Amino acid sequence: METINQFELSREYVDRLQQAIDEHDKRFIVSTLQGVNPADISTLLLEFSTEDSKYVLDILDNETSAEVINDLDEDIRAKFLKNFESAEIATMLNELDSDDAVDIINELPLKDREEVIASLDNREKADNILDLLRYEEDVAGGLMAKELIKVNENWSVKQCIEEIRRQAENVEKIYSVYVVSDTNKLIGRVSLKRIILADDHIQVKELYEDDVIAVETYMDEVDVAEIMRKYDLESVPVVNVQGKLMGRITIDDIVDVITELAEEERQMMAGISEDVEEDDSVWMLTRARLPWLIIGMFGGLLGAQFIGVFEKDILLVPAMAFFIPLITATGGNVGIQSSSIVLQSLASKSVFDNSFVKRMTKVILVALLNGIVIAGIVMGMNLILGQDLTLALVVSIALFGVVLIASLMGTITPLILDRFGINPAIASGPFITTANDLLGLLVYFSVAHLLYSNL
Amino acid sequence: METINQFELSREYVDRLQQAIDEHDKRFIVSTLQGVNPADISTLLLEFSTEDSKYVLDILDNETSAEVINDLDEDIRAKFLKNFESAEIATMLNELDSDDAVDIINELPLKDREEVIASLDNREKADNILDLLRYEEDVAGGLMAKELIKVNENWSVKQCIEEIRRQAENVEKIYSVYVVSDTNKLIGRVSLKRIILADDHIQVKELYEDDVIAVETYMDEVDVAEIMRKYDLESVPVVNVQGKLMGRITIDDIVDVITELAEEERQMMAGISEDVEEDDSVWMLTRARLPWLIIGMFGGLLGAQFIGVFEKDILLVPAMAFFIPLITATGGNVGIQSSSIVLQSLASKSVFDNSFVKRMTKVILVALLNGIVIAGIVMGMNLILGQDLTLALVVSIALFGVVLIASLMGTITPLILDRFGINPAIASGPFITTANDLLGLLVYFSVAHLLYSNL
Repeated sequence: METINQFELSREYVDRLQQAIDEHDKRFIVSTLQGVNPADISTLLLEFSTEDSKYVLDILDNETSAEVINDLDEDIRAKFLKNFESAEIATMLNELDSDDAVDIINELPLKDREEVIASLDNREKADNILDLLRYEEDVAGGLMAKELIKVNENWSVKQCIEEIRRQAENVEKIYSVYVVSDTNKLIGRVSLKRIILADDHIQVKELYEDDVIAVETYMDEVDVAEIMRKYDLESVPVVNVQGKLMGRITIDDIVDVITELAEEERQMMAGISEDVEEDDSVWMLTRARLPWLIIGMFGGLLGAQFIGVFEKDILLVPAMAFFIPLITATGGNVGIQSSSIVLQSLASKSVFDNSFVKRMTKVILVALLNGIVIAGIVMGMNLILGQDLTLALVVSIALFGVVLIASLMGTITPLILDRFGINPAIASGPFITTANDLLGLLVYFSVAHLLYSNL
Repeated sequence: METINQFELSREYVDRLQQAIDEHDKRFIVSTLQGVNPADISTLLLEFSTEDSKYVLDILDNETSAEVINDLDEDIRAKFLKNFESAEIATMLNELDSDDAVDIINELPLKDREEVIASLDNREKADNILDLLRYEEDVAGGLMAKELIKVNENWSVKQCIEEIRRQAENVEKIYSVYVVSDTNKLIGRVSLKRIILADDHIQVKELYEDDVIAVETYMDEVDVAEIMRKYDLESVPVVNVQGKLMGRITIDDIVDVITELAEEERQMMAGISEDVEEDDSVWMLTRARLPWLIIGMFGGLLGAQFIGVFEKDILLVPAMAFFIPLITATGGNVGIQSSSIVLQSLASKSVFDNSFVKRMTKVILVALLNGIVIAGIVMGMNLILGQDLTLALVVSIALFGVVLIASLMGTITPLILDRFGINPAIASGPFITTANDLLGLLVYFSVAHLLYSNL
């Protein structure tokens, strides 16, 4: 066993629980799931039908059920919630932080949203949720929770502790206590450690740090993640343009953001257009993959038309056809390498952007080196293998050109995409590979025409 | 301005600071950098030579300098530290948590390590570091810090607070207080919130939660990251096989692990063999890229040899050469899509692995659908464009076969790599694309031989 107190999920337990559900053996369900972490129950329920899962959730206490639902993957949660009445969903949302509640509401069909919000009996929670619904999901406002502990700078430590006590049920994890002015402007923070160590009668204004890092409501989630990573923050306060404290973002949400961004990038690089997973339906998987395959296919057909122009050349020197895969593959490989290096740079934005000229000079130098080595080896191999000298020259010169062009394309494309606010990871996907294929063929046949006097 | 209190780095300030360094204007340096976050100073120093940076760091107080060095990227830090004496490094390490200190020591040349450790005058810190040096860098033991607050279950809340006070300087961020038995076995945790809200005389044993999630020293960092993500933990205690509390891992280190893993995967998918960034030297960039380009090149040369076998066919039906890029590109695209979907699954390991048969059935179904659509469109296009019927049939049948084979290859390869403990992301890189190219050509020319009676 590698972790302590992590719920051990066994096939036997799943079978036994299925039996308990079938026999309506509530005692078994309650007694075996008591104290189990909601995240583990979420994983467990993936093994059961949505109806059976609903049966289990109805038996568990409301707080646990809410956490279990909260821990489910988005697409699975949508299926689960179809079995729930609006009032039932509202009761669960009461148990969650406002940010999680809003995420769930945003996933509901439009017609259910109002009904669920109307069913919320906790007025404050409903207001918080309505407030958060105004923000896009991928900005700080869409990530933040309204639940936090804030105190006035004129309060004493004792008053702070009372405020924490008052809010203790609403705010599950407290990292910092935020200090605000009379007009709710964020002016600092006090760590829990400092509060514990301070005398009860000391005033907050003597304790707080005023160099608090905060983010604005409309900051992009990518930038929020970068700030929390850079400054090693476990939570960050969110302020509006007037500097008023609106909420806080905790690191667990940012870990999810980072994980999702990495997945998204992987999918773009692989040419998959939707967020699909292996256990999605055949139909969804096909739909996510076909668009890019079709783009690649049209690229290939265009390539065929293009080579068709040179049909006579191929009849004269059929060996020219042999090296088509070498030319296209090299272009593809070089292009993906180049754009992936730019992607890396864009992800860890430096303060002063490298000048375009400096960047390109280096790209060209690396391309020259790579090109010389590849073209050189191929030249040698072709001569050793007894290939015609002119053809060997054509192939190597074309390869050298392809490496150079693919390096430039692979570097410039993500930069342009990024400038226009498009995810630059597309540049490492099939679209660019296809474009590189065509360019490679163009170079190859052009060089051939130049070197073969009889073509 | 999007964030509050984030240091604004301007070209003007950099120039002004350079001037201050040249003129040895210590007053300007201290007064403008006072209170600036060390992470920002790290970014700032990237604009200066290592000698000038050392000059600035020597002026700043020791704690700030240590944090600045700690926030630097590994490769830049190595350059910086060359200008420091062992004793100077030791003084800085005294200011850091043991995990960060060990990371820095591990990056030093072997001969400097012992000297630095010997120069540590804080005995406890030295012991902690020696203890941590025993672990590999990519397991829980290599990530954990020894600094933490632990209390005995028989203590009162008041004693807890005294322990926190005693350790306050060593443990910068306290998330939880760990509860141990008389033999140092981890038995639970108490959140700071609970301690604040509890009466001074209550005993720890009445307060603590015993369902604490812990990890073992030898757990892989990937698994630690997954556990902290799953359970939304901001810190996790590390125990040895006997269950004794050895240290704790905080979420900021795990955020770094997640970011690095994503970068590593991107590099593997792009065929880059070392951890390079755009601002590395031309030589390093070339060295990281050439190996995969050469593999792809040999694949291409092999492909040329292979097509060479069919030289006569091409002379008879030169149009066959036109579709070579379509065949190889489709194989590449399908293969990368398939392996990327498997990568995603492997990253979010489910409890019960899908059975191999079930997984393959789905892969084949998706491949059949994709293959039919692609082959169908190409068939139609070729007929519209007036291509020979036999050739159109050869191309479409070959495409269908290629989609099927590339799907299977793309799915099985990462699974096999993962089974053998090799990073499965390689399967999305150039190696597999090259293999798919060759397989595609084999299928294409085989189908041609079957359908053309005169070949």
